[in-house]
Amino acid sequence: MAAGRDTGDVGEVEIEAGLRSDTARAIGFSDAVFAIVITLLVLDLRVPESAPGGMLHALLDQWPVYLAYVTSYLYVAVNWLNHKGTFHRVRCADRGLHWANLGVLFSVALLPFVTALVSRAVEKGDAFDERVAVAAYAVVGVVLSAAWLWLYHYLSRHRELLQAGVTSRFFEAERIRAALGVAAYAIAGGVGWWVSVPVALVVLLLLPLFYGLSSNGSYDLLRRLRHRR
Amino acid sequence: MAAGRDTGDVGEVEIEAGLRSDTARAIGFSDAVFAIVITLLVLDLRVPESAPGGMLHALLDQWPVYLAYVTSYLYVAVNWLNHKGTFHRVRCADRGLHWANLGVLFSVALLPFVTALVSRAVEKGDAFDERVAVAAYAVVGVVLSAAWLWLYHYLSRHRELLQAGVTSRFFEAERIRAALGVAAYAIAGGVGWWVSVPVALVVLLLLPLFYGLSSNGSYDLLRRLRHRR
Amino acid sequence: MAAGRDTGDVGEVEIEAGLRSDTARAIGFSDAVFAIVITLLVLDLRVPESAPGGMLHALLDQWPVYLAYVTSYLYVAVNWLNHKGTFHRVRCADRGLHWANLGVLFSVALLPFVTALVSRAVEKGDAFDERVAVAAYAVVGVVLSAAWLWLYHYLSRHRELLQAGVTSRFFEAERIRAALGVAAYAIAGGVGWWVSVPVALVVLLLLPLFYGLSSNGSYDLLRRLRHRR
Amino acid sequence: MAAGRDTGDVGEVEIEAGLRSDTARAIGFSDAVFAIVITLLVLDLRVPESAPGGMLHALLDQWPVYLAYVTSYLYVAVNWLNHKGTFHRVRCADRGLHWANLGVLFSVALLPFVTALVSRAVEKGDAFDERVAVAAYAVVGVVLSAAWLWLYHYLSRHRELLQAGVTSRFFEAERIRAALGVAAYAIAGGVGWWVSVPVALVVLLLLPLFYGLSSNGSYDLLRRLRHRR
Repeated sequence: MAAGRDTGDVGEVEIEAGLRSDTARAIGFSDAVFAIVITLLVLDLRVPESAPGGMLHALLDQWPVYLAYVTSYLYVAVNWLNHKGTFHRVRCADRGLHWANLGVLFSVALLPFVTALVSRAVEKGDAFDERVAVAAYAVVGVVLSAAWLWLYHYLSRHRELLQAGVTSRFFEAERIRAALGVAAYAIAGGVGWWVSVPVALVVLLLLPLFYGLSSNGSYDLLRRLRHRR
Repeated sequence: MAAGRDTGDVGEVEIEAGLRSDTARAIGFSDAVFAIVITLLVLDLRVPESAPGGMLHALLDQWPVYLAYVTSYLYVAVNWLNHKGTFHRVRCADRGLHWANLGVLFSVALLPFVTALVSRAVEKGDAFDERVAVAAYAVVGVVLSAAWLWLYHYLSRHRELLQAGVTSRFFEAERIRAALGVAAYAIAGGVGWWVSVPVALVVLLLLPLFYGLSSNGSYDLLRRLRHRR
Repeated sequence: MAAGRDTGDVGEVEIEAGLRSDTARAIGFSDAVFAIVITLLVLDLRVPESAPGGMLHALLDQWPVYLAYVTSYLYVAVNWLNHKGTFHRVRCADRGLHWANLGVLFSVALLPFVTALVSRAVEKGDAFDERVAVAAYAVVGVVLSAAWLWLYHYLSRHRELLQAGVTSRFFEAERIRAALGVAAYAIAGGVGWWVSVPVALVVLLLLPLFYGLSSNGSYDLLRRLRHRR
Repeated sequence: MAAGRDTGDVGEVEIEAGLRSDTARAIGFSDAVFAIVITLLVLDLRVPESAPGGMLHALLDQWPVYLAYVTSYLYVAVNWLNHKGTFHRVRCADRGLHWANLGVLFSVALLPFVTALVSRAVEKGDAFDERVAVAAYAVVGVVLSAAWLWLYHYLSRHRELLQAGVTSRFFEAERIRAALGVAAYAIAGGVGWWVSVPVALVVLLLLPLFYGLSSNGSYDLLRRLRHRR
């Protein structure tokens, strides 16, 4: 970059470049983290201990593990798609954006842990353990949605980081989706704690599906709105 | 991308770009998942518990683990080569292609689990456990082949996603190979369940070899056919 | 690279290129290592063994694990940001730089181990175990800071590896920060061993925060200094 | 690639491209595998089980684990540097090269397993276990060197895959180093089995060091030879 000019400003250019660099490394690093998290989930699919002849029974007994695996796989996949859609619109990154991104990755990396909590509670715990595990999963959902909210908010205020032709309105709209996520996971946790664990589990399973679909939906919606104008 | 034009269409261009982006991230993410899955397999190569002096015996006793490792390594390697050959022909990706790809990765990520099931059953289970484990491995083989079928079918219907000069005929041909995979793994599972576990294991070992070779074969075949025309 | 010239020097050019290549692979490899280390940390967030109904208590009991996780996540994140800031200024890499980089990665990879040591000691060990664990964590901090010192020193002496417009003064300044890190982690270890484990833990928690902030600070400082000139 | 020409040859061009593609994905995939293997090694650095107050003793007792970790880290690092030096000279890859590369990765992925074997045998096994573990490590060393031999041999015979200006002589020279590796690891294994485990361990520790240094040496040697001509 920056073919050596012979003015005293070169150092300045370089320092700028240090503060705001392209997003290639943030993307490569994030992709690796998402890939590891999505495959760490599979480590919870453990071969169950069983007496000879008891493998089928033991495998069927751990059905909550499979359901938790599918749910969390979907959740991580939707997060990756969101991440791709977001950074596709970003031209360069500064420290603030990096920290917001590291916040998202921090929260995503907690998913295998709370996923294991839920399947363990359903398999071996009592009703109280299930409430605890569902609440813990919901808390991570709230934290993750809040991290996205932070990221979107940051981008909506830093137009200078966006690709040419990308308006801050896109990230203002995404902010709403993230805020809805904070609310939805908080409600799911409350339902699990005070009302009904099975209902909360169904909500936690459906939320990633909803986000997967609504993501397409909001694209289309925005597109149609702009067509009309 | 898209140097800022001053028309109202810029936003539209950007939204399009969001719907159909280049495949770089899908490829980087998939490569990481394949790399993790292929090395997760090695985690099943555990140092066996043994009394002092008993390590050689214990190592030789777990021969099914080594065979399962080699088989699954080959299987993942062939899947990676397929993936490379496929995305080499893809110019850009939309949500549908991303979800099909995530379906392939989901199924590949299950291989270490069923590989561990098979080696555990052969090592410590009885005849019924072996039938269960072989059937489970075959089910994942069916699911994985079906995911490829979905991906190839999707690409054969979305020529606009392909590189210039790539015809949909390529993916129509690949669809046949994937459909054969669904059938072959279903048959292997059936043989393991109703007929003979050893025969099914040999088939499961040979299938990746066959796909590794037939993959080259279909390239050459297509090439020769086109030469003749 | 190097369009084929028809002189006998082409081979020479190629060998040069072998000795000093671009940094793309070093960056990709390092990003993968950082991503794995940062997610390996989460493997220590284990579902605690507990009797039915005892999950909440067991989860709260392992609070040192969560604190250790957050601390080490921050530490690895700061290291990644440092790494990005460093290699952003590097044009090409020779063997010496690769080995210095492998030294940094070697030390970073030790963080999950000593993190687990600390949380284990606080959870289940006695006062002596805690001193041992804190000292071990501090030793890895010293080794990691020393690896950075080596890397920065190497770069300050090999201007030919740097991007155009980057002066060796940048790496001379970073060298000071790394040397301070060696001292700070040595002091934290000494405090933990001879004075007070809780004080040492607080220092170990604050050090990454300080480095995260001072990193911005030193950028800004340098920038302002150059503005004035 | 290949802007759509309107002749019937386009399909042909594309099929060629499928058979011989650029090396970007092979490199990304290999970097991820190397990064995972080098960090999997750290998983063997386990927090030892110990009674309160016994952590220091337990940590010091597992010194063979640390030595094995350092040795294998060096070994993987040298392999990565070799891989980088090799693919730096490769312009495109065909199926044969991919399989040779997958053979190298297969062997590298076995290193954490045999490393754990050696440290386990030294820690808890008897003299016979040590001979078994050292022999197993040496066998993987032989297999890995043989995989490199295959890869170098393949490249020395397929000049069409090399970068412009790279002669096949480079890979003919590397072939010799790989063949020496086969011999050296076989001898180390033999020494460990029939003569002395400690001597074999020292040889296994020194071999990566020798390869790390000789790698530079052969570059320099080749360079000087070409200068003279």
